[in-house]
Amino acid sequence: MSARSAERELAARSPAAARRIIRDGSFEGPTASLAAGHLQATVAILPESRALDFALYCQRNPKTLPLIGMTAPGARDCPALAADLDLAQDLPAYRIFEAGVLQEETGAVDAHWRGDLVAFLFGTAQGFEPALAEAGLELRHRTEAHAPPLYETNVPMAASRHFGGRLWVSMRPFSPADAIRAIEIASRYPLAHGAPVHIGDPEAIGIERLNAPDGGTASRLRAGEMPVFWPSTRTLEAALVAARAPFAILNAPGRLLITDWERERARG
Amino acid sequence: MSARSAERELAARSPAAARRIIRDGSFEGPTASLAAGHLQATVAILPESRALDFALYCQRNPKTLPLIGMTAPGARDCPALAADLDLAQDLPAYRIFEAGVLQEETGAVDAHWRGDLVAFLFGTAQGFEPALAEAGLELRHRTEAHAPPLYETNVPMAASRHFGGRLWVSMRPFSPADAIRAIEIASRYPLAHGAPVHIGDPEAIGIERLNAPDGGTASRLRAGEMPVFWPSTRTLEAALVAARAPFAILNAPGRLLITDWERERARG
Repeated sequence: MSARSAERELAARSPAAARRIIRDGSFEGPTASLAAGHLQATVAILPESRALDFALYCQRNPKTLPLIGMTAPGARDCPALAADLDLAQDLPAYRIFEAGVLQEETGAVDAHWRGDLVAFLFGTAQGFEPALAEAGLELRHRTEAHAPPLYETNVPMAASRHFGGRLWVSMRPFSPADAIRAIEIASRYPLAHGAPVHIGDPEAIGIERLNAPDGGTASRLRAGEMPVFWPSTRTLEAALVAARAPFAILNAPGRLLITDWERERARG
Repeated sequence: MSARSAERELAARSPAAARRIIRDGSFEGPTASLAAGHLQATVAILPESRALDFALYCQRNPKTLPLIGMTAPGARDCPALAADLDLAQDLPAYRIFEAGVLQEETGAVDAHWRGDLVAFLFGTAQGFEPALAEAGLELRHRTEAHAPPLYETNVPMAASRHFGGRLWVSMRPFSPADAIRAIEIASRYPLAHGAPVHIGDPEAIGIERLNAPDGGTASRLRAGEMPVFWPSTRTLEAALVAARAPFAILNAPGRLLITDWERERARG
């Protein structure tokens, strides 16, 4: 099977089938190519002792952290998002943190699961990107076949007791006309961040060099294009590390949870 | 001053001025007439021991319980919703529950305040009603000068550990054409419940007699009109009572918290 037809085959899988190949360890890559048309979620898992404070942090920053699911302490499923979900096995790669320090990246966390863990699930830019592509807008990081560039800004998040830090953003370059169209379209998907947080001058939000992102890979800007910035759930990792939460599990970058939700449900 | 001009004077007050007359005890009535153009919120206050579970309940029922604010344990302010807010004094009337039983209705709860209390604030139908009126739709309960009728349905809420119960709804009668228009307009205000949950046959959601509501006052249906049902935050009181939460404070019916938010922020 050619790489291209393998890709089409992965895109055509149902969410349940995609989770199955992840769960049995046959797929460890980025999830972007899987189960086209369905919403994928960023996952943060915390002990109950930090969960109420974290819920407050999410409530205060709904644009950056659009909460689409949450579990009861200890529960590994989340029926509202997907049938037969096992949050301890259904991500291709997890990152385990203790006191804010990365301990391990692993393909399953069932051995680390505890009865006091609460999972929070968030919509991401993956929710609106297909709508931009369908409208004929070019997503540069896809053309260039790399992860979108991520930047830490100087924009403070609304803090809770333990969680705060600064907003991280992803960037997509567009012509002014396409930027306007991208804003119109993305704004219809509030559970996938909605409209951008900033357009134009990167320095206005504390970004000094567009070609040196803090995460992902730089995207090339063509003449006449402007950078368009959306909030990124990458903000979460920075906030969890800074808070030195005693224990936390996050999805590895680009390895998201595939939900049963049709993408259009990101319209809220 | 005539009753009519007194009413106009109250409607013209700023949110801060409206909260001030409430805080100093000069106003104990329903808040519908105060600070026109600003969003008012239903308030539920619970001890930290139940707050995470309650946050989960809210997350699972966002249409019925559109969370617009939340406090850290013990905090009496909520700067995101209003400057200089005192949640223990700024409602005209509070209801205090212990183990699910109403203990007292009172104009302030500062004497009952505790360091472990967490407040949850919700958008209500008050957020979309003015937009319906501006579009020329008649709000029958306003024409008839009474509170909207409330009904307990047979529709189960998505449960958390302690909180569940059945959905309560408010009802507004409209002609079919106006019902369509009401759906279009209300759907733009997701933080005020958004679109209705049901139109037409009351029995389909377990309501036997429209003229005998479980709360509020019946609205008259004219020939050719259909009942249009929106979720009501009255659901909260039923869920808190059923859960026998050790302690809880709610706003008294119709006595909402006046926020600094322009009503249009209920668009989310």
